[in-house]
Amino acid sequence: MTTHLDRSVGLVTTRTARVFDDAHPLTLRSGATLGQVDVAYETYGTLNHARDNAVFICHALTGDAHAAGFHDGDTKPGWWDTIIGPGKPIDTGTWYVVCANLLGGCQGTTGPSSTNPTTGEPYGLDFPLLDMGDFVEVHRALGRHLGIDRFAAVVGGSLGGMQALQWAIDHPSEVGRAIIIAASSRLTAQNIAFSAVGRQAIMRDGDFREGRFLTEGTAPRRGLAVARMMAHITYLSETGFEEKFGRSAQRGELTKNFGVDFAIESYLEHQGERFLSRFDALSYLYLTRVMDYFDPFADPQALDALLDDPVRFLVLSFDTDWRFSTEHSRRIVRHLEGARLPTSFREIHSAWGHDSFLLDIPDYHATVRAFLERAAEDLS
Amino acid sequence: MTTHLDRSVGLVTTRTARVFDDAHPLTLRSGATLGQVDVAYETYGTLNHARDNAVFICHALTGDAHAAGFHDGDTKPGWWDTIIGPGKPIDTGTWYVVCANLLGGCQGTTGPSSTNPTTGEPYGLDFPLLDMGDFVEVHRALGRHLGIDRFAAVVGGSLGGMQALQWAIDHPSEVGRAIIIAASSRLTAQNIAFSAVGRQAIMRDGDFREGRFLTEGTAPRRGLAVARMMAHITYLSETGFEEKFGRSAQRGELTKNFGVDFAIESYLEHQGERFLSRFDALSYLYLTRVMDYFDPFADPQALDALLDDPVRFLVLSFDTDWRFSTEHSRRIVRHLEGARLPTSFREIHSAWGHDSFLLDIPDYHATVRAFLERAAEDLS
Repeated sequence: MTTHLDRSVGLVTTRTARVFDDAHPLTLRSGATLGQVDVAYETYGTLNHARDNAVFICHALTGDAHAAGFHDGDTKPGWWDTIIGPGKPIDTGTWYVVCANLLGGCQGTTGPSSTNPTTGEPYGLDFPLLDMGDFVEVHRALGRHLGIDRFAAVVGGSLGGMQALQWAIDHPSEVGRAIIIAASSRLTAQNIAFSAVGRQAIMRDGDFREGRFLTEGTAPRRGLAVARMMAHITYLSETGFEEKFGRSAQRGELTKNFGVDFAIESYLEHQGERFLSRFDALSYLYLTRVMDYFDPFADPQALDALLDDPVRFLVLSFDTDWRFSTEHSRRIVRHLEGARLPTSFREIHSAWGHDSFLLDIPDYHATVRAFLERAAEDLS
Repeated sequence: MTTHLDRSVGLVTTRTARVFDDAHPLTLRSGATLGQVDVAYETYGTLNHARDNAVFICHALTGDAHAAGFHDGDTKPGWWDTIIGPGKPIDTGTWYVVCANLLGGCQGTTGPSSTNPTTGEPYGLDFPLLDMGDFVEVHRALGRHLGIDRFAAVVGGSLGGMQALQWAIDHPSEVGRAIIIAASSRLTAQNIAFSAVGRQAIMRDGDFREGRFLTEGTAPRRGLAVARMMAHITYLSETGFEEKFGRSAQRGELTKNFGVDFAIESYLEHQGERFLSRFDALSYLYLTRVMDYFDPFADPQALDALLDDPVRFLVLSFDTDWRFSTEHSRRIVRHLEGARLPTSFREIHSAWGHDSFLLDIPDYHATVRAFLERAAEDLS
């Protein structure tokens, strides 16, 4: 692990902060309130004296606060260790990097599996429906907790990119730059369809118990695994699947049966099973639904506040991403450029589809690095 | 209904023939035998005296023998009534058209839900695994039953096209022409992945009971509906979904909940539910698995028998089909042309993805019509 640690932020721990409480509850976009909101987060690097070198990392659907470095005893680093660390594109020698599990999640931040303080039982489906703006408010509250009023950059891929966009729209004076990677401002019918079928697999599972499975001691494991397996198909390109698996057998030759025979079947089954140990079916419902409803440019005034506080945008897509194709990024860019906001756009070549945002692709990393180096020039 | 009937084959009924029995069992490619095989079929048009004007229609995954015309009392015609009928591309004024439910199906032909004569109970997972060649042998047996030793053309879309290809490979002297539409000779890892996740949804359903659900009086309805909903996403193009549904609400405005809110969600739910009344989960497993394993050109001698009996091929794809993209058709064409077989290939423009093969698309229908008109010139 030593070699890894050399180019890593090293050993890290996830901490938790209560950012809203009964005295200062969180009012959601829907009007509902949450009396207690805890946030799990990690930080890497050092906040400078001027407190102007903070970068916020927004994670994707199934991510968590552990973006970089190693938890004690782990041999695998955080989910975005490829890009965050000393000398890496998001350079912890320069930046104080904050990553938090998002509201509605299941990795330490308050979500539908948390205890509802008014009943003493898990919220289940009594947890209020969320909006992209609610994620942002919780992240801002964590910022204030850490003494940060403005982030030099907010960065995210997929659902993370959608949060970065929402943050820039809602509070442009608090965001210097936004990096929006493999994201969308508006899911298509096909996107929503995949999302809907995943939720159906969960909600139709007999062990879902109308969302009360935690109280009843069950879990919709079968439905959640099916949802995850299906989603995984959309995370990789067809070419990527062909290169990685093709039609090869999992063991020697194809034996012809209904079990795991092709290597691709083994991969999907593994992804489905592994997911069960780290993710909660209710969070899956809540977070995917936020993506479905996300449509910030439906409001023609969405970008008005940015005219006075122009956030600088970097929008990136991957050419084989068919979950959020380049067309999604182009739509974001059209809106930003229509409002004359400083926007860089680049489509990166990669064989690996949507998941490319997690990988070390030289062109991609160089582009993020250059964008943040320009941001570093503004530091006090 | 009168206007419909004018351009239709009219009222039709599905008949059943026992094409294999204990005295003459069917030996499958796997070596297993089936003592009794019944086939449900329909015919349209008239067999001529020379018995050389027969056209066989191979149906796709969830099709059945009812390809054209109306069953008594129905207001909707058979699934391929757009293309089969008097004056239509597969002209019943010229051709004697035969369509049969395939082996392993659930619409009248022997399949895993049929009664196993040795136990008196439904086969369930004791039904043997099938091969594309097994479908063909049953269809040939039906041909013999009808007094047809050679089909002027064998035609099919998707899994139907795969059967047409297999038939031409196995018995070229019995096939004049083969029309292979939106099909594949080799599923990709992504194709297999979708297929595998659909089966997982079914087999993980608590009501599947290891395939004994008929005996136990249950049915994996939730899993089968999820499998169907997911598959439907792959049948239509992203553009098609956008045109048809976009982000529109099912009722007036979006209300934000976990139920059916977007129109696309309502469509998928409807597709899933409707499927339950007409399809069986076991057939879904058996038929999709045949497609996964289909790989005829893995045998380099696959086309050798055609050198003496060159079948004429028409291979068609649709430009927005992403289930079996044009690349799949091109692979078939490369193999056929490599063996110097007379092959026409055309990619048809259509916004509607894989399902285009079921639709009345003028370019597509004109191409099929012209190909069969040339076949008609050879009739005695």
